[in-house]
This record gives sequence, structure tokens and C-alpha cells, in this order.
Amino acid sequence: MLGNLSGLLDKGAQLAQTKGFDPAVLVGAHLAPDMFALGRQVQVACELARNSVARLTGQAPAPAQEPGQTVEELKGTIAATIDYLHGIAAATFEGADTRDIEIQLPNDRVARMTGARYLRDWALPHFYFHVVTAYDILRHNGVEIGKPNYMAHIADAIQPRGQ
Amino acid sequence: MLGNLSGLLDKGAQLAQTKGFDPAVLVGAHLAPDMFALGRQVQVACELARNSVARLTGQAPAPAQEPGQTVEELKGTIAATIDYLHGIAAATFEGADTRDIEIQLPNDRVARMTGARYLRDWALPHFYFHVVTAYDILRHNGVEIGKPNYMAHIADAIQPRGQ
Repeated sequence: MLGNLSGLLDKGAQLAQTKGFDPAVLVGAHLAPDMFALGRQVQVACELARNSVARLTGQAPAPAQEPGQTVEELKGTIAATIDYLHGIAAATFEGADTRDIEIQLPNDRVARMTGARYLRDWALPHFYFHVVTAYDILRHNGVEIGKPNYMAHIADAIQPRGQ
Repeated sequence: MLGNLSGLLDKGAQLAQTKGFDPAVLVGAHLAPDMFALGRQVQVACELARNSVARLTGQAPAPAQEPGQTVEELKGTIAATIDYLHGIAAATFEGADTRDIEIQLPNDRVARMTGARYLRDWALPHFYFHVVTAYDILRHNGVEIGKPNYMAHIADAIQPRGQ
């Protein structure tokens, strides 16, 4: 999904070039004035991917970073996140489903759940929230993207019928 | 997530009542003129939930339906989908991870994958796409919702710190 997100940003940069506007305008675009802009959506998607894996494998979550200001910076953050994820050996997840996960929340609250619930009920819905909202911001701003871009990871499973 | 979606629609109906507009305007709202409107986003989220379970348990997927025209109709579709999902016994999923899944696509194409890949790479990204886009349409139209509404299913795991 992070790879697809990088491809969506490319399509945004393409539109900016065709229409002759600064692609950083897209990075600062919102669907509502009190929602995160595209740049922060991408940044948080990357943080969630990284932190979910950290928590499930018993490491401390990484500190939050300021989001990139340009499409290139955002793509760099995505690439670094994918590299980090590829570096985690599958065996590191052993026992993750029963691990106790604790998430510090604002207003002196804490969320506690098992690793299995954390993956299904916290990490995935949050991660997809930011990936899809990034898509929606781009789409709302006229970037020519569709489900094949959002679902680029599935291309190898699609064939002509009868084969 | 479908329960949360129903709650998001309630918040939309609430805004319509406060501001004195027809809630069906929200049902027909788009983020882009060639994207599905809210009603279709909700309908497709329900179809995906139902059909993913059908495919993973070896049943024929249900035929597509016309989306509801009102918030009440959409909430009815969500409630019926949740009922359907609750009616599927866990044991029905036995062997689903290695089941061969085939999805007919437009332009004489077909996608083929195992059940495990289908769940992770097809069902979940598609399902979340439509749930989050429904959220984004409502949010873009000024409905007062936030992450606690989108993540309502996690409320029972949140406590004051120190308990």
C-alpha cells in the first residue's frame, strides 16, 4: 500500500507539471480545513506502518516527525519506511498476537489490547484511513487516479480470462 | 467498521436537521464528479463485506444492488449486512487461507489468488477504501465527525491512565 501511495504522489506531480502549478500545493491540500493536509496524511501513514511493526515486535515506537514539504520528500519518507519494513524478519513477530499492547492517548488515557486486536482494530483501520484520505485529497484535486493505482499491488494476479 | 459507518451517517443526519437541509443531499455528495457518491460508497462497503465472506467460505457472491437513496435506507443495508456477518460461524472459514479465489473483472480479465492473499490484498484495501471515502465525503461536507467516530469499535479498550 505504501508503494501504491508513492505512485499516487507521482500522478499528482504529473498533473502539476501538465497544468503548470507547484506540486507543493497538493502537499498542502485538505478535504476540510481542520483535517490533516496531504503531506501529514502520508507522514502519518508511514509512522503507523513503522510503529505498528515496532509495537508488535516489542520495540519502542519511533518519535513523530515533521511531514515533508514536497512530493520528493514524501516519497523519500515512504521509501525509507518500506526499507525499514523489509528489514524486519518474519520470525520477529513470533508471539505478537498475544503480546500486551499499550497506546498512550491524549487526555491521560491509555488503550490496552492484545497484539491480534491491535493489528485488526487499531493498526489496519488507522493505516488505511490515512492512505485512502491521501488518495481522496489527490482525487478531489483532479489528479487522474483510479482503483488500479490504489490497488497497484494486485497487478500480478490479474490475467486475461481463459488463461 | 460497519457499525462505525452507521454512526457516521447518524452524524450526517444530525447536521442536516440542525442546518435544515435534506439529508439525501449528503447521500448524493461526491468528492469528485466521477467518483461514487456517499450512498454508493456505503452500498459497496456492505457488498464487499458480504462478498468477501462469501468467497472465503466458498459461496457465490451476492448480486450487486442499487444503493439506498436515504440515510435510513443506507443504515438498513448496513444493519442487514452486520446481521449476515454475525450469522457466519467461525468454523465455516476453515481452509479459507488456501482456497483458490477467482474474481471476474471488466474487459475479460480475471484476478486469481489464494484466500489469504485475497483477504489481505483485495478484500481489506477495497473495504477500507469505501468506508474511509464515506467518512471523507461527510467530513468534507462539514459533518462533525472525527477519529473517535471512525474508531468507535475501540472505545471499550480505552481507559484513564493509571487504572
